Amino acid sequence: MSGSTAGPEALEPLVRAVLAALADGAARRGGPVPAGPPDALAEHVAGEYAAARGEGALSRLTSLLAYGSADPADPLCAAHLHCPPLAVAVAADLAVSALNPSQDSWDQAPAATTLETLLLGEMAELVGYDERAAGVLTSGGTESNLMGLMLARDRVVGRASGRQVELAGVPRRGPRLRVFTSAAAHFSVQRAAALLGLGEDAVVPVAVDRDLRMDPDALAEALDRCADDGGLPVAVVATAGTTDTGVIDPLRACAELAAEHGAWLHVDAAYGGGALLSDRLAPLLDGLALADSVSLDWHKLGWQPVAAGVFLVRRAETYASLARRAVYLNPPDDEEAGYPSLLGLSLRTTRRADAFSIAVTLRTLGREGLGRLVDACHDLARAGAEAVRSHPRLELCSEPELTAFLFRYLPARGPYDPVRTDRINAALRRGLLREGRAVVGRTELPGTGPGRVRLKLTLLNPHATPADVERLLHAVAEAGRAEEAAEEAAGRHTGETGEETP
Amino acid sequence: MSGSTAGPEALEPLVRAVLAALADGAARRGGPVPAGPPDALAEHVAGEYAAARGEGALSRLTSLLAYGSADPADPLCAAHLHCPPLAVAVAADLAVSALNPSQDSWDQAPAATTLETLLLGEMAELVGYDERAAGVLTSGGTESNLMGLMLARDRVVGRASGRQVELAGVPRRGPRLRVFTSAAAHFSVQRAAALLGLGEDAVVPVAVDRDLRMDPDALAEALDRCADDGGLPVAVVATAGTTDTGVIDPLRACAELAAEHGAWLHVDAAYGGGALLSDRLAPLLDGLALADSVSLDWHKLGWQPVAAGVFLVRRAETYASLARRAVYLNPPDDEEAGYPSLLGLSLRTTRRADAFSIAVTLRTLGREGLGRLVDACHDLARAGAEAVRSHPRLELCSEPELTAFLFRYLPARGPYDPVRTDRINAALRRGLLREGRAVVGRTELPGTGPGRVRLKLTLLNPHATPADVERLLHAVAEAGRAEEAAEEAAGRHTGETGEETP
Repeated sequence: MSGSTAGPEALEPLVRAVLAALADGAARRGGPVPAGPPDALAEHVAGEYAAARGEGALSRLTSLLAYGSADPADPLCAAHLHCPPLAVAVAADLAVSALNPSQDSWDQAPAATTLETLLLGEMAELVGYDERAAGVLTSGGTESNLMGLMLARDRVVGRASGRQVELAGVPRRGPRLRVFTSAAAHFSVQRAAALLGLGEDAVVPVAVDRDLRMDPDALAEALDRCADDGGLPVAVVATAGTTDTGVIDPLRACAELAAEHGAWLHVDAAYGGGALLSDRLAPLLDGLALADSVSLDWHKLGWQPVAAGVFLVRRAETYASLARRAVYLNPPDDEEAGYPSLLGLSLRTTRRADAFSIAVTLRTLGREGLGRLVDACHDLARAGAEAVRSHPRLELCSEPELTAFLFRYLPARGPYDPVRTDRINAALRRGLLREGRAVVGRTELPGTGPGRVRLKLTLLNPHATPADVERLLHAVAEAGRAEEAAEEAAGRHTGETGEETP
Repeated sequence: MSGSTAGPEALEPLVRAVLAALADGAARRGGPVPAGPPDALAEHVAGEYAAARGEGALSRLTSLLAYGSADPADPLCAAHLHCPPLAVAVAADLAVSALNPSQDSWDQAPAATTLETLLLGEMAELVGYDERAAGVLTSGGTESNLMGLMLARDRVVGRASGRQVELAGVPRRGPRLRVFTSAAAHFSVQRAAALLGLGEDAVVPVAVDRDLRMDPDALAEALDRCADDGGLPVAVVATAGTTDTGVIDPLRACAELAAEHGAWLHVDAAYGGGALLSDRLAPLLDGLALADSVSLDWHKLGWQPVAAGVFLVRRAETYASLARRAVYLNPPDDEEAGYPSLLGLSLRTTRRADAFSIAVTLRTLGREGLGRLVDACHDLARAGAEAVRSHPRLELCSEPELTAFLFRYLPARGPYDPVRTDRINAALRRGLLREGRAVVGRTELPGTGPGRVRLKLTLLNPHATPADVERLLHAVAEAGRAEEAAEEAAGRHTGETGEETP
């Protein structure tokens, strides 16, 4: 057992074995991701898993996990909002694992209950909320967005603890409930609408401008049209840092329009919330404090191990849906006796003390120290965008507002063919993965039809250098040329006309 | 940064500092929980948190967290389904923190994706499912129960990806959707119904027998009445191991009745699933394989750090609500190229590789080794129940079917007064907490009116001894006598008749 006074001694040799196996696995991987096709890796993993037995299993499987990782600490792994965690955060998280507090009752987490509350106070201040705010740690933006929409729904249709007929009552005689978000917002908005019983198509996609930012005129028009059609706007979900390009919707305009139409404003700042740590970038989030609720994720631009989501509500009295008395967790006489309870703030019951690693990191580095890491990633993204711009075969497709940008490879031969360009970009990315050379993101621009596939770099490793990013982009261009050559060769083999021998 | 080849070296001194601070904090605590009233602890935590700065913050706050823990590794901490994690599981979880895989796409978790799939296959086999099963790791029983009810709802009202009108359509012209579960089931069933838009009062509480087990005749009657009233039974939720007493609903009878009424059967085996590891206890879960879906929690009777929830579905084709294509995570051409995706199995997007510590534990100890731990806790509970039975002032209120039982202190003086008995039991438990002597559970029997408060021991520490449990019960009885004495003294002071001077 890992707790009590004897636990640390029992842990010591095991932890040492894990550190050795992590180093061993990373060395065997020798790059950002293991080389080879996915089925070969799966077969290797299955073999190792079957062979692991008894005391050696920990080292063997840890080495396997490390070998088989896409490692965000490698500068050539820059696809997703998937950060390399800080060593101090990982060490703090070890304490959480070992002590295993659970945040659903004081008598499972006496100190951790207070620490979470203190951290949430700091988070509220960071966002610009006052002392009326409340919040909770979540598993990430998807859960936080769900909670924002749940509060918005319940404000309209009556407390969730109420009767189904109240929910059903609205569409029965009244208007259809609607949620407004941009076409570039995260799919978790649709997911939340489905889970909440509103249906995915309750979500009205609002048009974006060239930079994929929500167009406030389009939002105004959509809200007006909703009223005209007898719909009821439940919520506007603005994004502060879209998943693909990191752009920030016009938060003040969204807040004004939401207020005008009586809708809840939820801001998904899962990615962009990290900008609050940086003096340089924080002004981009102007208006955030007007939101009724906010999602923040410190496992994105905050270098925490997963999960480190935070959900905040501007005014605690609007945070009622989950209020809950459980006789085995928070009886009223315990609360009267001064035992606080976080149960009524979370969708979960048992809940890991994810606040701890964030709290330790914040106390170790301070906002300033973390802000320097944010700025370093922003600088890296700008350098990367510049490198794309000056490369003859790469096209920059979005500016790095935060730490990510879209680009693509433009084939050297033949006229522009959107289908072929999509295919080559998708294939070159898989080629880089298969060769274990680089982990690059891939997405599609909103809309329909070919020509929308884009590559993406999400730069979350503050220790990477501009030279690393250039190396990464060089690998992309090289892989693009290789795919072109392979296509031409395949074209010849299948009898199509090859234009030229490479 | 904790990853790559350099990460383990950076982690080493920090991890060493954490282990030292854990030992220091546990020694300062000197018992299962820190002594003192909750506000004093909160003030201490706030002071330490404010004072923690820079490099020393990790040690200072870790020692604080350890000092301020209710430590499930201490034999006198036995309140909740809150287990002491195995050192090997905690060490494995450190690897997860350090590498930070995220299960929402292959290129964030190449090996971890396969390991999760392999583990789920073993879990399905443990439950008795065949190769048609599917599943996912969850944050715990609450999320797993939500998923079970979501699938049940969507089977009835159409895919969640559909229109709100489909959900609303049912109550509009059709029957009211109903969920059936016992009065002793976990409150997450009501929570899930609210979140899903069915309303909490869609949940029909089914009567329980004397042992708090769902009464199959009562279920049959409730289902028949529902049909007569024009309601539509969406799901039956049976519990295999209730939170308070660990009893197991009659699973075969529930399955038959659910099938007869066309309802989905979800079994909440968050606690009782652990019995599957034990040859002695596994037969109690006979019929589990008939469930359409199951919740298991290895952070309960499985000695994992939180979270280690598992949600399983008997037939993968019924697991459709979350099927999801996200262009940046699982584009179709990647899947065609052999890159698997777990995205469509989870409510979350970013997701920690919680499967890893379970997998390592299973490979290290085997089912047999884990089964011995389950049996040890079961033996402990039986010894504890026997000790209660033979104690003149303690009353046993439930038999330990798994590893928990209810009991209470019976005041020595005066005739039985249910209000006073409740008050003294509640107060003695807080007294033990305040003195840092013991962490005992407290709950209430289903129903209304006074006399329902019970104390609870949940024995999840296989290294505790019957002597430890006797010590715990002795402390309870002593605290009960002290509360009685205090009440009498206070009664005298306030002018009431004191019967006797203690």
